[in-house]
Amino acid sequence: MKEQIQSQFMQLQDQICAHLEALDGVGKFRQDLWERPKGGGGRTRIITGQHIEKGGVNFSAVHGPMPQKISDKLGLPENKFFATGVSIVLHPINPHVPIIHMNVRYFETDAGMWWFGGGIDLTPHFVDPELAKDFHSRLKAVCDKHGAHYFKDFKKWADDYFYVKHRKETRGIGGIFFDRLDSSKGKQSEHFDFVMDVGRSFIPIYTHQFNEGFNKAYSDREKKWQLYRRGRYVEFNLVWDRGTKFGLDTDGNIESILMSLPPQVEWTYRYEMNEKEQHTIDLLKKGIDWVSVFGL
Amino acid sequence: MKEQIQSQFMQLQDQICAHLEALDGVGKFRQDLWERPKGGGGRTRIITGQHIEKGGVNFSAVHGPMPQKISDKLGLPENKFFATGVSIVLHPINPHVPIIHMNVRYFETDAGMWWFGGGIDLTPHFVDPELAKDFHSRLKAVCDKHGAHYFKDFKKWADDYFYVKHRKETRGIGGIFFDRLDSSKGKQSEHFDFVMDVGRSFIPIYTHQFNEGFNKAYSDREKKWQLYRRGRYVEFNLVWDRGTKFGLDTDGNIESILMSLPPQVEWTYRYEMNEKEQHTIDLLKKGIDWVSVFGL
Repeated sequence: MKEQIQSQFMQLQDQICAHLEALDGVGKFRQDLWERPKGGGGRTRIITGQHIEKGGVNFSAVHGPMPQKISDKLGLPENKFFATGVSIVLHPINPHVPIIHMNVRYFETDAGMWWFGGGIDLTPHFVDPELAKDFHSRLKAVCDKHGAHYFKDFKKWADDYFYVKHRKETRGIGGIFFDRLDSSKGKQSEHFDFVMDVGRSFIPIYTHQFNEGFNKAYSDREKKWQLYRRGRYVEFNLVWDRGTKFGLDTDGNIESILMSLPPQVEWTYRYEMNEKEQHTIDLLKKGIDWVSVFGL
Repeated sequence: MKEQIQSQFMQLQDQICAHLEALDGVGKFRQDLWERPKGGGGRTRIITGQHIEKGGVNFSAVHGPMPQKISDKLGLPENKFFATGVSIVLHPINPHVPIIHMNVRYFETDAGMWWFGGGIDLTPHFVDPELAKDFHSRLKAVCDKHGAHYFKDFKKWADDYFYVKHRKETRGIGGIFFDRLDSSKGKQSEHFDFVMDVGRSFIPIYTHQFNEGFNKAYSDREKKWQLYRRGRYVEFNLVWDRGTKFGLDTDGNIESILMSLPPQVEWTYRYEMNEKEQHTIDLLKKGIDWVSVFGL
């Protein structure tokens, strides 16, 4: 099974990269292969384009003795593990295109424990309720195919996970987040189908967001706001994101882990928001039902 | 005693701000007073000038019931505390002027426990051995007045503390760092004299670094390198700095805590360094004896 998962994840990376190059029209992915000294490795792919300012679409499949930090956390005896996943973060040039993040992952130990995890979340620089509704509705459609409670549960999980606690703001408008989809919750093949459906939903979801924003005009002020908002993205990833922290703690591939950081960022002391910017901040809250936002 | 410490720290803040305004020539500090709901408050002062791109010189004096996180860490029963300090971070416009950080602090509980802490460290964008020597020599002179081992011990402490573990680099060329100077190590008045001497050394130390760099010409490439190097400053402060983490964990004054973050930053995937940039990285190591760097 793990060979199949790994191979499907690699194909997913290929498909997404090909599509993003087409969407950007100019940028091409640069690939860096890396090996993990203790087993496995990955394909880091980075794009710098005419519309995507900095994007990373990474695949990895690593294995070996379980790092102490994981075995402690799982309360398991020293063991061997295998982990594979695809991670994406895209920072657009145009502030009217949102930042998007997607991750699908699989983990197993040679003692027979296994689970899937993943998610997609969106960080618009300016929240547009129609685009937020489109985003959440598409995620709901994917979830509904696989479990009646999936969307409700995984949306709440995303609201709680992608939360910039020290700012009392959600990172963006959320999305879905899930972890530990294991044998207690379903068959391996069913979870795998769900995770691959999430992965395949990335292209249509992002294409819509991209097409609605990439050729809109924007002001210097709107660009400045984007750079300022990217600061929150950095704060979340470096202070709160468990995946990033784990990578930094366990000597992961630093350049690959930190590809999620924006190309240019600004921190302004007590930024004075205009009405439109304040409106976006007012929408960075947990628990907003974006699917029914227009009462439909 | 605590009133005296607080009042001297406030004076130190005043003196440093006045001097920095004179040094910059144009920028004036903006002051924001803030109150801590559970007791005390502070004076956050931020400057945006013609040479200092973003600088913060903050004073705070807070008190109240001890936060759970501190009493757990100290292994003390629930208690009342008082803490006061001055914290400085300056980000210059010219990449030939280093980033500087200074902190002096005092902590006590109403059960009679007390200690001082603090430090100064320097983060040049380009390491100049003569300027590094000047910096460390001045710190050594301050330390030598108060304790024969102070410089050796506190320089090592700074090397270990200001370390960007995931990059395997020191943040800059270090300086001095010390904590828990308490009754087991000397009289309160002696520690206070030392800490105030450290605080007062800030002006001559920074003035020299500033004057040697602020009117040097610099290229676009040198500016770009500065923005890139500032990324490491962010990484250290958000991932490793215990003071920042503590502030974020305990609902501190966020804008004041994060004033240390640079105004503009760039993250470039696999930045390709030129020889001069590589030379600086080669010097971001623990244990370099900058005082004797020319064998003098």
